Amino acid sequence: MKKLTGAVLLVGSPQNMPDIRYATGFTAPDPVVFLQEGRKKHLVVSLLELERARRVTKNVTIWAAEALKIRGKFNRTLSGWTSGLLRQLEIRAVVVPPEFPIAVAEKLRQSGIRVRVSESTLFPQRQIKTDEELARIAECQRAAVQAMLAAVRHLALAHVDGKGFLRVDMNLVTSETIRALINKVLLDHHCMGQGTIVAGGPQAADPHEVGFGPLRYGESIVIDIFPQHLDHGYWGDLTRTVVKGAPSAALQKIYHAVKAAHAAALSMVKAGVTASRVHEAAVSVIRRRGFQNSVTDGKTQGFIHSTGHGVGLNIHEMPRVGLRSARLKTGNVITVEPGLYYREIGSVRIEDLIVVTPTGWKPLAVCEHFFQV
Amino acid sequence: MKKLTGAVLLVGSPQNMPDIRYATGFTAPDPVVFLQEGRKKHLVVSLLELERARRVTKNVTIWAAEALKIRGKFNRTLSGWTSGLLRQLEIRAVVVPPEFPIAVAEKLRQSGIRVRVSESTLFPQRQIKTDEELARIAECQRAAVQAMLAAVRHLALAHVDGKGFLRVDMNLVTSETIRALINKVLLDHHCMGQGTIVAGGPQAADPHEVGFGPLRYGESIVIDIFPQHLDHGYWGDLTRTVVKGAPSAALQKIYHAVKAAHAAALSMVKAGVTASRVHEAAVSVIRRRGFQNSVTDGKTQGFIHSTGHGVGLNIHEMPRVGLRSARLKTGNVITVEPGLYYREIGSVRIEDLIVVTPTGWKPLAVCEHFFQV
Repeated sequence: MKKLTGAVLLVGSPQNMPDIRYATGFTAPDPVVFLQEGRKKHLVVSLLELERARRVTKNVTIWAAEALKIRGKFNRTLSGWTSGLLRQLEIRAVVVPPEFPIAVAEKLRQSGIRVRVSESTLFPQRQIKTDEELARIAECQRAAVQAMLAAVRHLALAHVDGKGFLRVDMNLVTSETIRALINKVLLDHHCMGQGTIVAGGPQAADPHEVGFGPLRYGESIVIDIFPQHLDHGYWGDLTRTVVKGAPSAALQKIYHAVKAAHAAALSMVKAGVTASRVHEAAVSVIRRRGFQNSVTDGKTQGFIHSTGHGVGLNIHEMPRVGLRSARLKTGNVITVEPGLYYREIGSVRIEDLIVVTPTGWKPLAVCEHFFQV
Repeated sequence: MKKLTGAVLLVGSPQNMPDIRYATGFTAPDPVVFLQEGRKKHLVVSLLELERARRVTKNVTIWAAEALKIRGKFNRTLSGWTSGLLRQLEIRAVVVPPEFPIAVAEKLRQSGIRVRVSESTLFPQRQIKTDEELARIAECQRAAVQAMLAAVRHLALAHVDGKGFLRVDMNLVTSETIRALINKVLLDHHCMGQGTIVAGGPQAADPHEVGFGPLRYGESIVIDIFPQHLDHGYWGDLTRTVVKGAPSAALQKIYHAVKAAHAAALSMVKAGVTASRVHEAAVSVIRRRGFQNSVTDGKTQGFIHSTGHGVGLNIHEMPRVGLRSARLKTGNVITVEPGLYYREIGSVRIEDLIVVTPTGWKPLAVCEHFFQV
């Protein structure tokens, strides 16, 4: 925790606010109020959640909203819960995150509470993963590897029909069938895959397109698997790009450029290194191989995103690995995922999830590389 | 849309803000800016999302954040995206929801934009489901019914071992195994089950406890299945309570009280009826049968929640069906789910999902009732 001039206040659904889950171990879809003053943590939940909150948290004082004894209808709102807690604890100044709900802030200010908006994250320690957190992320990443292997094996089994479509037995192999297969393996590992990407050919030129329809011979197929664990809520993140049959020479060139960029970026990773340099290493390999970013009619082509991002209780969290990024620290968990995206030729992304160490990095789980399957 | 004195502004991740998905059809984990002025809708997304946003939305002007041409570093923040859009459209006053991020609001106010915080939802029409929405919710609810049948069939198969534990073949039947079975069936229907409840005996006295460990002969087992569709994002919600073998007389009494309350509540549902009266009908049956709410040591017992809630792009949304609730309207989708919770005896909840009609209601999907299995 950074030094703060007031108590840290968070209000909202823990499911959408990993800071609350991080600080307390408690999660729920319905909103709660969290307050931390020094090392003392408080959580206000509805009476319905009281016992569960007491059981799953450690060193957190749990308050039933209904027991905060605020007069009138006020105690039925989140503002009421918050005011009640602050009054109980005689707290007159709070620090809130940038995304704090404005209506609650305004109510607090009207009642004389000083509300300061923090410019940065209130839980920077989330970027340094503990051994327990690493074990949880590794669990998700192993699930992703198993799902990837199942998907690639299925594609390897496929044959090509007269129209260039992939089939297993008589059935078309589609983005949807491969995605269903992946999500099933994830579920076997108590993870869910929401938004699993299996995008073939031109579809993959849009890095967030999940993919749909039949997969074809000779086209690149980007498979991006990012499972969230159903119990503890940590994430994994893994991407491979494969092609069934013979890729064009241009697609091969793209694949090898991305693979080299991936290796170059990884070779830079070490505690103390500025994350921008990891990104620059990937960019530099890609440029040297003759690939440039371009935007035509609002359509982007080339290496159109940053090299990576942190992963933990959020799928995208700090630290960033891109332009103007900060120094890496031991215990950071980051993706390294350069990519090249071309509507005409195809797209390739290769992504691994690693933990930063004093001397380099370790993978959270190992997945071999494959291209032609 | 209610009459508004300014343009409606929403800022955040569409995945956490169903209003944005509702208004545009677009979803993403990363934040966006949405603005609606009269019937004109605008969405600011990163360049990465541009093409997908253009493809999946209708009658929405899509802006690439990077193209908003704001000087300096400002355009890399959500405040920058928002300011850029407002300047482009020459808008000086906006209405934001209560949960709008305070940091963005303060930046806008500093630059002279008038920001009014709405006290209520900005998309009340979300409560009135269209036929397409009803079809999507029904799809989820059918998935929930199939998963429930699979779970109940598995429990029906089980035998009791010498310690009172349930087993199928040699294997213990646990909350976890039943939950895995349910989530697998949901996935077969392109739905995910996050938080699926299979809670036996005293565990179920906490209505949000997901349940863990071996299930036992003679105890009540609350099974609450609320799938979200992986593609369109709508939800279903279904609860049944079963017991393997012979329930105690006290547990039977509870079951029949809840079933009667469920029927009484349903019999009240009709467009124009105040939702509180639906809740009161359930409460009244439960009271007449001799059950009272109580709180001992912060532990609640009895009928400790409201009778229902709206379901749509959120699992809990308007309208509420509890104390001080509003009139029901044709097209509302609500749960009816009375319950009774006792640590010593057991807990029972019975829940169906229905759509309100001018003359009564229709189920989104039909699930038979079972108790002893």
